[in-house]
Amino acid sequence: MSSTFGHRFRVTTFGESHGAALGAIVDGCPPHLELSEADLQPQLDRRRPGQSRLTTQRKEDDQIKICSGVENGVTLGTPIGLIVENKDFKPGDYAAMRDVPRPSHADFTYRAKYGLAAGSGGGRASARETVARVAAGAIAEKLLRLRHGVDIVAWVSSVGAIDAPAELAGHPPTRDDVDANEVRCPDAGVAALMVEAIETAQRDRDSLGGIVTCVCSGVPPGLGEPVFHKLEAVLAAAMLSLPATKGFEIGSGFAGTRMRGSEHNDLFVGKEDSIGTATNRSGGVQGGISNGEPIVFRVAFKPTSTIAKPQSTVNYDGESVTIEGKGRHDPCVLPRAVPIVEAMAALVLADASLQA
Amino acid sequence: MSSTFGHRFRVTTFGESHGAALGAIVDGCPPHLELSEADLQPQLDRRRPGQSRLTTQRKEDDQIKICSGVENGVTLGTPIGLIVENKDFKPGDYAAMRDVPRPSHADFTYRAKYGLAAGSGGGRASARETVARVAAGAIAEKLLRLRHGVDIVAWVSSVGAIDAPAELAGHPPTRDDVDANEVRCPDAGVAALMVEAIETAQRDRDSLGGIVTCVCSGVPPGLGEPVFHKLEAVLAAAMLSLPATKGFEIGSGFAGTRMRGSEHNDLFVGKEDSIGTATNRSGGVQGGISNGEPIVFRVAFKPTSTIAKPQSTVNYDGESVTIEGKGRHDPCVLPRAVPIVEAMAALVLADASLQA
Amino acid sequence: MSSTFGHRFRVTTFGESHGAALGAIVDGCPPHLELSEADLQPQLDRRRPGQSRLTTQRKEDDQIKICSGVENGVTLGTPIGLIVENKDFKPGDYAAMRDVPRPSHADFTYRAKYGLAAGSGGGRASARETVARVAAGAIAEKLLRLRHGVDIVAWVSSVGAIDAPAELAGHPPTRDDVDANEVRCPDAGVAALMVEAIETAQRDRDSLGGIVTCVCSGVPPGLGEPVFHKLEAVLAAAMLSLPATKGFEIGSGFAGTRMRGSEHNDLFVGKEDSIGTATNRSGGVQGGISNGEPIVFRVAFKPTSTIAKPQSTVNYDGESVTIEGKGRHDPCVLPRAVPIVEAMAALVLADASLQA
Amino acid sequence: MSSTFGHRFRVTTFGESHGAALGAIVDGCPPHLELSEADLQPQLDRRRPGQSRLTTQRKEDDQIKICSGVENGVTLGTPIGLIVENKDFKPGDYAAMRDVPRPSHADFTYRAKYGLAAGSGGGRASARETVARVAAGAIAEKLLRLRHGVDIVAWVSSVGAIDAPAELAGHPPTRDDVDANEVRCPDAGVAALMVEAIETAQRDRDSLGGIVTCVCSGVPPGLGEPVFHKLEAVLAAAMLSLPATKGFEIGSGFAGTRMRGSEHNDLFVGKEDSIGTATNRSGGVQGGISNGEPIVFRVAFKPTSTIAKPQSTVNYDGESVTIEGKGRHDPCVLPRAVPIVEAMAALVLADASLQA
Repeated sequence: MSSTFGHRFRVTTFGESHGAALGAIVDGCPPHLELSEADLQPQLDRRRPGQSRLTTQRKEDDQIKICSGVENGVTLGTPIGLIVENKDFKPGDYAAMRDVPRPSHADFTYRAKYGLAAGSGGGRASARETVARVAAGAIAEKLLRLRHGVDIVAWVSSVGAIDAPAELAGHPPTRDDVDANEVRCPDAGVAALMVEAIETAQRDRDSLGGIVTCVCSGVPPGLGEPVFHKLEAVLAAAMLSLPATKGFEIGSGFAGTRMRGSEHNDLFVGKEDSIGTATNRSGGVQGGISNGEPIVFRVAFKPTSTIAKPQSTVNYDGESVTIEGKGRHDPCVLPRAVPIVEAMAALVLADASLQA
Repeated sequence: MSSTFGHRFRVTTFGESHGAALGAIVDGCPPHLELSEADLQPQLDRRRPGQSRLTTQRKEDDQIKICSGVENGVTLGTPIGLIVENKDFKPGDYAAMRDVPRPSHADFTYRAKYGLAAGSGGGRASARETVARVAAGAIAEKLLRLRHGVDIVAWVSSVGAIDAPAELAGHPPTRDDVDANEVRCPDAGVAALMVEAIETAQRDRDSLGGIVTCVCSGVPPGLGEPVFHKLEAVLAAAMLSLPATKGFEIGSGFAGTRMRGSEHNDLFVGKEDSIGTATNRSGGVQGGISNGEPIVFRVAFKPTSTIAKPQSTVNYDGESVTIEGKGRHDPCVLPRAVPIVEAMAALVLADASLQA
Repeated sequence: MSSTFGHRFRVTTFGESHGAALGAIVDGCPPHLELSEADLQPQLDRRRPGQSRLTTQRKEDDQIKICSGVENGVTLGTPIGLIVENKDFKPGDYAAMRDVPRPSHADFTYRAKYGLAAGSGGGRASARETVARVAAGAIAEKLLRLRHGVDIVAWVSSVGAIDAPAELAGHPPTRDDVDANEVRCPDAGVAALMVEAIETAQRDRDSLGGIVTCVCSGVPPGLGEPVFHKLEAVLAAAMLSLPATKGFEIGSGFAGTRMRGSEHNDLFVGKEDSIGTATNRSGGVQGGISNGEPIVFRVAFKPTSTIAKPQSTVNYDGESVTIEGKGRHDPCVLPRAVPIVEAMAALVLADASLQA
Repeated sequence: MSSTFGHRFRVTTFGESHGAALGAIVDGCPPHLELSEADLQPQLDRRRPGQSRLTTQRKEDDQIKICSGVENGVTLGTPIGLIVENKDFKPGDYAAMRDVPRPSHADFTYRAKYGLAAGSGGGRASARETVARVAAGAIAEKLLRLRHGVDIVAWVSSVGAIDAPAELAGHPPTRDDVDANEVRCPDAGVAALMVEAIETAQRDRDSLGGIVTCVCSGVPPGLGEPVFHKLEAVLAAAMLSLPATKGFEIGSGFAGTRMRGSEHNDLFVGKEDSIGTATNRSGGVQGGISNGEPIVFRVAFKPTSTIAKPQSTVNYDGESVTIEGKGRHDPCVLPRAVPIVEAMAALVLADASLQA
């Protein structure tokens, strides 16, 4: 169950951090879509490790291969098999951690659920699992772009206590703007502060969290379902299914709870050949269904749990131990989270589009 | 699709605000559970309109009837049919709104999706739809209590800018504590301020939003799924599927993004015959799976969209109109949201428990 | 799980033979379909008990009530709640059977699965459960008729060893033809023999089985899914999900296994503005997808398990006992199976139509 | 949708006949199962082409590779990625058929559904698609054997008009018995006749159909679901989802419709420490749930549609053409269908076992 996402545009993934390969089956992609590996690789490249000093030094080129579902350059309507081989895995790095559940990792809970000690490198709980999501998301994104002209862009809007201007959400940057610096915050001044903060944390053998903001423009009105599968509910699930996430808000979010109705309501105004809203506190959805305004949401990522700083914890027998993170890891996952958030947003919207 | 929630403990609902009846089918409830209407009615009573001056004056007694799945006082393992009749519905109240989409309601988006003007009283988009959820949730809650000793309690932790002490989450109140006042905030002093704020807004023909905090104690370790259906993801979807919600956070949530990893990590300590964590920034989950600590989350509700204050908007043809909310409505949905949040939490956990 | 059928046109049912009510939620029916109870009642009337001497004498008028999803005579696109009250249930009739599993009934297997003795009258295993299917199927049928001009007709093509002419499948009768006699075989001469056979069996305190043939005309090409959910696979599941069924065949079926490929292949020929097949050994499907020819299939029903004739069996403790069926029952379920088979065919095709 | 089978033991497949690879993701396999490629290869070898003169001469060694979900020789509880590379594919063989839908193939219906001419070699509609099912089924089978001692064996019980003795179902052969000859009929005398019949058909550039019988022994009572997902319904869907199948019957099947209830009922008798039935006309299920007796069913396969004999048909424009099958194909699919039927039976039972 857990490894399938979506109903009409369905993605099923497999793969551990340190196994032979990761991959996905994308079932339900319509026929006649021009598609090749070149459509998928760019987002995988934005996600892969080793891009900069700010990210883990694991060496993976994450080359994607399409195994089925495409013939003569177009999709057939049949399932698309995707595979990425793991190349640089070092089981040895993690062996020492077998007896001690790493704090705020999934070691303890996987053992509770499966009765197995965690596999090397976090196994399925590793963020490496998101490779398959990003590959599948790139297909969804292309479908949305061609079908509706949807444009999805995410960026790092805060790292620790350093915030990018909130106004960015109203005038979203391009991906090129976002990629202009290694921290993926489109405000150059703020980005410099973020880089500095991450480097400081790294030096302190510590880690930082932050927030990703995502805007989906061009989503037509009418996508989403009205009760349990509201568009915002499915987006929330998609985002909270990502490793290290702790919160989701759409439109006005938590801050909106402090407004009065008369301030918060989005009044309708005439727009081109239709009507739209003067403000967008709703974040592009009403009653679970898109209203044609940009979908705007924010996702909270906790500080990376793996830190090199010594931590006092206990082993499975309750005996005190000191643990120091030794595996390769990101001091701050935010920059690499950007394409992953975009991928999940695309999967949600593609599924909603095919259900409409 | 949209009207079914869960996989093993599956709830499917039906019912419009102004139709003959609302109800649900609960499929997957195990056999041998003692069950009668008396188990369901209390939460329905906490949810129903007309409880106090702070809530809508629609008169519904919301009597639940079990139609199947129970024989001789115990469940059979077969689907449980639940029905609540609508009694006090007044289609006329809403007729004037047919040509004008109410701001921040689902009128516009339902028309975009279904091509139909909204039904009287919001139809399926009305919060009245949650009657069926609360009935089903009460079954889930009883199952969880008997199976694991789970205890679920939610309360109003903020109304507008008025916040209850954050410490309550660490020492959750009982439902009796919560119900000690009509606003359902267990801190009496803060509750008084909240009541005053709501009454002021009501006088101003305006509305308020707020936050509900929920704590689920006694959840055993090992519930939840590791990838797309992480327990926090399913909780997030459950909460964002409720009308008027704009945000969800678990454990440290958005505030946690401002900590460093060394502050945020929950170190393990010996606990009774097992191990647990000294802090609970994780909010009871790791990697999508419960860790045995209390599950703590917060849900943001926007200020009620229906307000009596005149609003300048446009009709479907883009012509300027002024609209004044006339239907019966709550100036602040928070007090009645409490049992609804509890119900959805119970549905998520019951489903996870049966999947484990 | 077990009580939901379909993906896009989804039916979830509830109800025991001797509970307060039975019903269904139909989720996914498109908006704008004219619908009232009058569309559903005719098939319920064809299914209900007490229609003739050949059927059980239980008195149920099976009046259907639509509780939601319809406003001003048209569907809203929201779930349609359906309910039928049980009126004539006599728990006492079955009390004696508590300790003895009735041969070829589900008493033994329900106890194995649920750990409960079977409820009165077979509970959920009773054919009474099909009331909800027939009501939902009538909605599906109307949708298919208006969308595609689909016409579904089933009839009794054999009772015991008495067979109606196979040629009927090539020139299917109307429902009026089928209903011209109480056994629902459109060949009057054969029908008379069937009636006689059933009456003889009844006098002998015994029962008969038989076969229902069903033809779905007007199904457009392209419905169905190519791999696990082939149209014939879903039809097979739908039919084998009916009580008392033991077999399903489509097109040439089992007899076709004795032909050679050159005899069996359906050669293409020009037809009006398209092409079609000269023969229909495929039964209207190729590779899981409809080809525009009539869908023709046959369903085997075993002889009714409840018989008044004494049977030597054992109780749950393995002690020899003699059992005589005392409940009201049909000596041959075939006549009443006709609308049930039609209902399930309609549910399958409506779901396939909405998935296309 | 179409490419996923099962709910708890879920298999999702991908792969065309002439693409780079085929494969599957098995999600839901419990942890701690010893598993390696050696568990899967034997059934793939029984399925693969080129085993004997009776089967297609396509050369594929069908080596299976496990990509994930297994560490140190045991399953982790995470999804198991499976992949088989295509080696001997010849797109050229099929190019001529682009404009002419092959009679009784899926060319016409795929074009109706997807708007694409069929891919080389039938694409996803090719029986090659079953490679992935057989690999996944071997995992299911191992799970069932270790969990319950289930033993599944299928054999060819008829080819054209040549029938093996029906009594075999009561005393099922072993797989070694079945594999004693190339036609996989455990009665040596009948097998010789079958081989002769297939060779004659082959010489005549024609093809034959037949029936596979399958017996699943050791299935515990209580597996299956009571209403829409009856065990026999899911088995029927599984079998009718296989290419070239036209019918399914369980237990007494179509022949049972000619018996009276008093003959057909399976009377209970004492058996070891429980009770069972004296006869098994039910085929191991009652009311959708296994009763502990062997599950016995039969599957009808039509004669292979691809034949070398010229056939008079029309192209998509309705113009008369003569077509001669040129691709490599089996004159009779029955021998290779045996492990495929076993695989699907295993998938159904594993899923039912995990749902119980």
